[in-house]
Amino acid sequence: MRAYIEILRIPNLLLMGIGVIFGGFIALKTYMFSQDLGLAALSAALLTAAANVMNDIRDLEIDKINRPERPIPSGRISVRVAWTLYAILLSVGILLSGVVSIECFIIAILAAILSYIYNRWFKRTGIWGNMIVSSLVSLPFIYGATAVGRGGNLFIWSLSTAAFFATLGREILKGIADIKGDRAKGIRTVAVRYGRKVAGLLVLVFFVIAVMDSWLPIVYEPIGIKYVSFIIITDIGFLISGLRIFLKPDPLRALREKKVVLLWMLTAMLAYVSEVNIH
Amino acid sequence: MRAYIEILRIPNLLLMGIGVIFGGFIALKTYMFSQDLGLAALSAALLTAAANVMNDIRDLEIDKINRPERPIPSGRISVRVAWTLYAILLSVGILLSGVVSIECFIIAILAAILSYIYNRWFKRTGIWGNMIVSSLVSLPFIYGATAVGRGGNLFIWSLSTAAFFATLGREILKGIADIKGDRAKGIRTVAVRYGRKVAGLLVLVFFVIAVMDSWLPIVYEPIGIKYVSFIIITDIGFLISGLRIFLKPDPLRALREKKVVLLWMLTAMLAYVSEVNIH
Repeated sequence: MRAYIEILRIPNLLLMGIGVIFGGFIALKTYMFSQDLGLAALSAALLTAAANVMNDIRDLEIDKINRPERPIPSGRISVRVAWTLYAILLSVGILLSGVVSIECFIIAILAAILSYIYNRWFKRTGIWGNMIVSSLVSLPFIYGATAVGRGGNLFIWSLSTAAFFATLGREILKGIADIKGDRAKGIRTVAVRYGRKVAGLLVLVFFVIAVMDSWLPIVYEPIGIKYVSFIIITDIGFLISGLRIFLKPDPLRALREKKVVLLWMLTAMLAYVSEVNIH
Repeated sequence: MRAYIEILRIPNLLLMGIGVIFGGFIALKTYMFSQDLGLAALSAALLTAAANVMNDIRDLEIDKINRPERPIPSGRISVRVAWTLYAILLSVGILLSGVVSIECFIIAILAAILSYIYNRWFKRTGIWGNMIVSSLVSLPFIYGATAVGRGGNLFIWSLSTAAFFATLGREILKGIADIKGDRAKGIRTVAVRYGRKVAGLLVLVFFVIAVMDSWLPIVYEPIGIKYVSFIIITDIGFLISGLRIFLKPDPLRALREKKVVLLWMLTAMLAYVSEVNIH
């Protein structure tokens, strides 16, 4: 039993579910929980669990050396059983999405395909893997908004696209921090393939695009002062972090900035959540 | 008089005005011309004219050698008169935008600042200049949609963000085609600074993001088969062009692809316009 809990990575699933629920709240601009939103959150968690199981199957050979205590390399779960578990989690996840709506069903299928492609071909590679990871980070918000019938809401698209580009920048930033180890292991990140200077430039470019996305709501939605206050802090943070890494793209600085950027991601979430009204 | 017509670049202004008007039509999903849309198109044309005049003032030293027949180097318009013309075009353009709405006023100010910054500091530079140009290309659609009170429409944002990233990719592509000349002239494009391999990768990444943007409407808007048909052609085109340049980023191929991409931009426009209903 413990092996199954370990392989699913519960905190990870909870985060995904919370992302979906907040996507719904933010799109509705009010804390209104519904059955559809709950089902969407559950199905997102199940799809993430399926992706986590496949991740462990694909990592088996590496984990035998680095993480021999993990459920599959330790022999507590066989690869055959793990694939069965993957299939069940995936099917139930997609099934539940279909109960919510056809739009949610399409997103669930897309997410399943993306995480399969990632685990199968793009793990530990460069920018294409980073782009898939970033898509999967931005999808829960859209999924939650779609579940409550507000998938076309521009405020949510501002949040998701900003999340996409901020994550993409941060993934490349992580590659600068880990350049030595990645190069030794033959992992072809942007920093390894094209050098730290190019990676630093891309981090700044993607952070700038994320900052631009965060300003869409101010012109196009009736947005309050709370959003503006939090987003100014967030954007100044992203621009300073991006500039610092652009001007001196060395691993030590990247190690610091990749943590600092998590703080800006948190203030960004506060900005969007602050616009949700309590009734 | 002829000098004034020359400096304004009429075809350029017409294109900008048409972009605004089609932005309005697409956002409304119907061909409905209104006074607001006309004023917005006119103000966009005036702001573009202002930017064109400033462009010629800034290019004076280079044009003395390369284009001595242009209005300013030939002495038919003095720099002083040109600046006055710039100020008049800019003020009237912004004034008209304010007549339409406060949102249009904000966009007009933003566009004026962006083109000033571009002409002042970012001409003939690398990716930051490319990003400003791409923003200015994507703005007319948003401006037109905002003028008809539909600025928050996701269909328009799909079009504008796709236009932004497609243009950004194409600008970098142009840098690959012109790498020899640019290097000789000291123009620090992405291809010159970071090499053709990096430039080719960026072209593909930005084209992929543009393709992703083009699929938003299919899930989130009631979209017809015409859009889907045109956008499939467009997206296959962008992906093939992007892959070709990524796999072999040489100037000759870039020269061909930068022309081919214009064709995909046209089929993209047809996709969006095909969804506008005739009443």
